[in-house]
Amino acid sequence: METLLRQSRSMCPFLSNTSPATLRSLSTTAARHDVSPGAGSMSNLQVLARRCPIMGKALAVQSARSGASVLEGAFGGVRAYHTRVNRAKLHTSTPKEAQAVDLENLRSKQVPFPHTISNSASAQPSRVGVPPMPKPASFDYDGFYSNELDKKHKDKSYRYFNNINRLAKDFPRAHLATKEDKVTVWCSNDYLGMGRNPHVLKSMHETLDTYGAGAGGTRNISGHNQHAIGLEGTIAKLHAKEASLVFSSCYVANDATLATLGSKLPNCVIFSDSLNHASMIQGIRHSGAKKIVFKHNDVADLEAKLASIPPEHPKIIAFESVYSMCGSIGPIAEICDLAEKYGAITFLDEVHAVGMYGAHGAGVAEHIDYEAHRAGKPQGTVMDRIDIITGTLGKAYGCVGGYIAGSAKLVDTIRSLAPGFIFTTSLPPATMAGAKAAIEYQANYQGDRRLQQLHTRAVKDSLNARDIPVIPNPSHIVPVLVGNAEVAKKASDLLLEDWGIYVQAINYPTVPVGQERLRITPTPGHVREFRDHLVEAFDSVWEQLGIKRTSEWASEGGFIGVGEAGKKEEAPLWTDEQLEVDTVLKELKSGQDAANVLESILEREHRATAQAVSAAA
Amino acid sequence: METLLRQSRSMCPFLSNTSPATLRSLSTTAARHDVSPGAGSMSNLQVLARRCPIMGKALAVQSARSGASVLEGAFGGVRAYHTRVNRAKLHTSTPKEAQAVDLENLRSKQVPFPHTISNSASAQPSRVGVPPMPKPASFDYDGFYSNELDKKHKDKSYRYFNNINRLAKDFPRAHLATKEDKVTVWCSNDYLGMGRNPHVLKSMHETLDTYGAGAGGTRNISGHNQHAIGLEGTIAKLHAKEASLVFSSCYVANDATLATLGSKLPNCVIFSDSLNHASMIQGIRHSGAKKIVFKHNDVADLEAKLASIPPEHPKIIAFESVYSMCGSIGPIAEICDLAEKYGAITFLDEVHAVGMYGAHGAGVAEHIDYEAHRAGKPQGTVMDRIDIITGTLGKAYGCVGGYIAGSAKLVDTIRSLAPGFIFTTSLPPATMAGAKAAIEYQANYQGDRRLQQLHTRAVKDSLNARDIPVIPNPSHIVPVLVGNAEVAKKASDLLLEDWGIYVQAINYPTVPVGQERLRITPTPGHVREFRDHLVEAFDSVWEQLGIKRTSEWASEGGFIGVGEAGKKEEAPLWTDEQLEVDTVLKELKSGQDAANVLESILEREHRATAQAVSAAA
Repeated sequence: METLLRQSRSMCPFLSNTSPATLRSLSTTAARHDVSPGAGSMSNLQVLARRCPIMGKALAVQSARSGASVLEGAFGGVRAYHTRVNRAKLHTSTPKEAQAVDLENLRSKQVPFPHTISNSASAQPSRVGVPPMPKPASFDYDGFYSNELDKKHKDKSYRYFNNINRLAKDFPRAHLATKEDKVTVWCSNDYLGMGRNPHVLKSMHETLDTYGAGAGGTRNISGHNQHAIGLEGTIAKLHAKEASLVFSSCYVANDATLATLGSKLPNCVIFSDSLNHASMIQGIRHSGAKKIVFKHNDVADLEAKLASIPPEHPKIIAFESVYSMCGSIGPIAEICDLAEKYGAITFLDEVHAVGMYGAHGAGVAEHIDYEAHRAGKPQGTVMDRIDIITGTLGKAYGCVGGYIAGSAKLVDTIRSLAPGFIFTTSLPPATMAGAKAAIEYQANYQGDRRLQQLHTRAVKDSLNARDIPVIPNPSHIVPVLVGNAEVAKKASDLLLEDWGIYVQAINYPTVPVGQERLRITPTPGHVREFRDHLVEAFDSVWEQLGIKRTSEWASEGGFIGVGEAGKKEEAPLWTDEQLEVDTVLKELKSGQDAANVLESILEREHRATAQAVSAAA
Repeated sequence: METLLRQSRSMCPFLSNTSPATLRSLSTTAARHDVSPGAGSMSNLQVLARRCPIMGKALAVQSARSGASVLEGAFGGVRAYHTRVNRAKLHTSTPKEAQAVDLENLRSKQVPFPHTISNSASAQPSRVGVPPMPKPASFDYDGFYSNELDKKHKDKSYRYFNNINRLAKDFPRAHLATKEDKVTVWCSNDYLGMGRNPHVLKSMHETLDTYGAGAGGTRNISGHNQHAIGLEGTIAKLHAKEASLVFSSCYVANDATLATLGSKLPNCVIFSDSLNHASMIQGIRHSGAKKIVFKHNDVADLEAKLASIPPEHPKIIAFESVYSMCGSIGPIAEICDLAEKYGAITFLDEVHAVGMYGAHGAGVAEHIDYEAHRAGKPQGTVMDRIDIITGTLGKAYGCVGGYIAGSAKLVDTIRSLAPGFIFTTSLPPATMAGAKAAIEYQANYQGDRRLQQLHTRAVKDSLNARDIPVIPNPSHIVPVLVGNAEVAKKASDLLLEDWGIYVQAINYPTVPVGQERLRITPTPGHVREFRDHLVEAFDSVWEQLGIKRTSEWASEGGFIGVGEAGKKEEAPLWTDEQLEVDTVLKELKSGQDAANVLESILEREHRATAQAVSAAA
């Protein structure tokens, strides 16, 4: 084996330059042929083999001759030369008829010029000074796409989208492909139902009529207007910052801001929480700056890593307030302390928190100093200490778009330098007007987010009472552990088909393999009848599919917080006091059980919300 | 001088590792102190100096002591050590009182821990085994932002946004900050006025009412719906492709698609037209793939470069159909030929062409085979040969968003792999419904884009008649050459203030320095009275500011097509025949002059458009 590998390496520059580990990883992408031998696929190694002047030609010839045994034959024909590749193939993939057909289709479409395919596979590596060789086949793009998709199917990360049409007048209900086929949506990020808020819709209708559908240009060329100015002013005020800047999405805001700062600040180092969102990961990658990942929410690890970089080098600590897939909360104040100690700036993603936390809905950073902000005194608060806050207009604010908020100079710098801001059409006037109305509504009304928190508590309590494994956390996210991609999808499908409940399965790469889950997001509209139905459905599906209960996880020692003995549970971020649970408790006669008390609060909040909305309409 | 530099280099690792060219460039950012000595600024070299443990401390001490002469003093104090830096500074910048104040603000806000600032600048480079050194100052973020902004101000690339509120009911008029202050917009990319089209608005209002303001999630998690399915189906049909995929914007579509393909295709090489849009440049950069820039629209250069890469390596040719700032048209058919010859795939950005060209508004690729597409026979056409078409919903279609169209496998691959698609909130249902209505309207109605072309011809003719330097091109873009950033901005300001005409100045980096221009975009709504007023205004502003006329450029030998003797002008992409100019000519009595003929056509088209719109309302 080792001798064979050494021999192959001495002959083939690709093999000699590629480590055995890489070769193994390239060849194992099409594993599992024992499970589904008919399915077949190309491994990445096969894709590479097709590009080899020797292997590629042999493959093309065989492919043209016969659909069956294409790859085996091709590899067999040059066995002496590429034994190592061949062996890897034999162990990891199967021939596939469709592959040959696809290749032919591709040829006829993309390479119509005359092809001379020769059977004599010459091992001559250099083309200088030798008779012209037959033109090698061009890259097989279609085969590449097929292979990438096959990999997604094989590791169960291929995404099937559900057709969900959320009904503004029947919140939180939606219809599927047909209007009659209705379901209850339990996984939308329209956390507060602002997408159907009458203030928001009124503002959007009026703006549409007066200013039309689109902005018609970039911010610099005819796309800047009173709606952009108004929205950015409102966002800056919300976060008590000097300025803000609106982007197409918070994905773009995070990507553009981190990429710009990281690439422009000389010798910048970016410290990134290990659970950071893809948009930040991409922004950091795009910046080209040095990236240091610290353990999720681990300030000791972060400090050790901060201390390893010279004090005078610019540093950015990028993290989130609410981590959306597990519901954990970032240690914002502690990270501000470290940033100050080590001369770093803080970049806080409040995407899943804006509208949801704080006296005015500015997020977790505001929530930490709830009373100070309620009193209109942001100076010196944690939110005040954060350098860059990013947020979205597309979740709790019910619209679309994203933003950054910070000092006037920082915002002007990003405005002036970030291509992702400069060279793109502005959000439509109506979108900006709607988002502004949503922020202002939530800044002046606490009812929605309190009711949302009460519903969250009720859902968590009810699921826990049935031994359904809720991953504990102090936020509004209700992640329910399944632990297997296929089962999670099956559970989601059963809930939709049998129960009319839509909860999307969350699989790799959004969460690690083995941590697959159903992620429930209650809203103010998910009143008791929906909740009872949800809990009933989960209990039944858990039974039907034999999914592990909390007690079962506990008997195995627990997993990511579920059934972990002796693990102290974090108190909810919204305290009993902030939710006025205590007050209502006092009002109620003694002897009532906890569920009834919660229901009383929920009903009271619900009435107040309904009144607020109808007053607005 | 050279001796000094050598001495400094031997002592300072920064100087020894930095080339004289880089040092020069770092230090010249704050040039022109003779022009505005009071304004001052920091050069990048000064920013770097602040980060040096030696220089930084010295600067901080001086800054704390006195606002005046901070940098001079600081540099003077370590003259023996950093002579080279000092000399560069003396030549290129001036001290600034505000700088010191900013620094103090920054300190008090961001670095509240005790600072020990020592006056003794030790040159000891290593900290190991020596007594603890005073803590060096952390990076000066605020100074960095100031410096970046100063550079933009100095090179006149700092952008001042105009507050332009385009009025749906008074197209192409808009109001400025106050409703009474009205102007005519002559630079919007809402090329066809679809932003106020009654079909589009009706569809958006209805969708808003039924399905609410936002999508509420990513495409995978509750954000996929009938509007996305419908819109993507319509786009695929428009371009006669198997599939399409909608993104937040075409910036994101280009960036995500090129970054994904370029990073996933093994050994991918991307060939990029030198005038490609920033979104493609970023996507290519983000892919990490090898990038080869070819001369704008130069197929010979492209071929030479394609031939330099082994045939079996995957290759992408990324280019545009209409280059938005000069109006040139890409040689699409020829590039398809090359792609097939060299086994590359084609990536065509039709952002400024969709809705505007072709029998159904699919863009320039469709326009090339106008009759085949009118007959519903896309097979074998140039559009059919393109692998990936990208377009926008935010310009001629009047809404917001972008897309790719291509084979089902390609689109599914991008759908499955591109983080910029996967991890972002979907466009709102109403936006997608409006965009679909716009595409369908334009696919079934030729009047708007023909009228737009006739207006374009009329504007170009009228400006040329006044010796105003229109940069010649065969498209709907009317770029008027100014050639100086400050003058271009002044002309734009005068047009707005004195004439109520809004045409944004296009300066570096959107166009090269020296090629600054005013970019006019006529629409079907820019009827004769607006045009006459525009031409009058340009003539007057040209006079007032002494901007070069076409004849003056000609006397200097011409520049970028303006006044270039003997240069063959490209025929407009929309031919006389396609615009039915011939037919109308025949209808008209002989003896009429050209301007009258054009007016007749315009009036006829205008009546037809008005009828179509009122029939829809």
